[in-house]
Amino acid sequence: MTTSTTSATTDPLRTMDERECWAYLQQEELGRIAVTLGREPEIFPVNYVVDHGCIVIRTAPGTKLVDLLINSRVVFEIDGHDDAIGWSVVVKGFAEEVDPPADPHQVRHLPTPWIDSRKDAVIEITPVTVTGRSFPRRPKATPSAE
Amino acid sequence: MTTSTTSATTDPLRTMDERECWAYLQQEELGRIAVTLGREPEIFPVNYVVDHGCIVIRTAPGTKLVDLLINSRVVFEIDGHDDAIGWSVVVKGFAEEVDPPADPHQVRHLPTPWIDSRKDAVIEITPVTVTGRSFPRRPKATPSAE
Repeated sequence: MTTSTTSATTDPLRTMDERECWAYLQQEELGRIAVTLGREPEIFPVNYVVDHGCIVIRTAPGTKLVDLLINSRVVFEIDGHDDAIGWSVVVKGFAEEVDPPADPHQVRHLPTPWIDSRKDAVIEITPVTVTGRSFPRRPKATPSAE
Repeated sequence: MTTSTTSATTDPLRTMDERECWAYLQQEELGRIAVTLGREPEIFPVNYVVDHGCIVIRTAPGTKLVDLLINSRVVFEIDGHDDAIGWSVVVKGFAEEVDPPADPHQVRHLPTPWIDSRKDAVIEITPVTVTGRSFPRRPKATPSAE
């Protein structure tokens, strides 16, 4: 018997609505992209921004990441936690390279690369689905929730 | 001309040795697993521990994640940053379900699930490769590094 999560009586996972997901996407700056190379998964941390409802990343031109992403189905993920809850947001979509903006107003926001290398390739992920979950964190080795 | 990173003169990425990678793996508790489902990538945040040189995660039995992971090539990733540097570690390997330890000494450590649902399936990832990179963070909108 396969279920998508744990049984309903014990399942503390909460599905976030899309508005909540985008709020998290707007607030973070570091995510991860998973792609399939042949039948093998690959995962890369990336700096990103949200622009016009897309996930925009910058990376060095000619890299393996660019080769993998172009015209590919990709999954983009962010997650985090505070003392009370953990959460994650997953964006599935298609990646395409877009021209670096000759007119800087064309793309309103571009992520500032964390590293000082040339970061000229601009990849845009157009979301197909945006899903998110949050869950209460179990207190770490504390005897009560108080 | 395709290169794996940016040109040597500007490349601030530093490859970490395996000992450094394991130090990060030991210190963290939340990572992400990427797997391929058909030709589609999937990514899941997971709570984990390192035990006997393996990545051990717990999850609810019968979940989609368990189905995807068993006997699959998987990629496990952690990343983080402080004010000075960012870093990421990627473990590639094979996942298999192991019996929950009847003898608790069989698996010395098990991750404490963050959520209070039943977490009975134990998945062990045996690493094939462990790689890591670190890079200096660009100061955020500050005029100098001083």
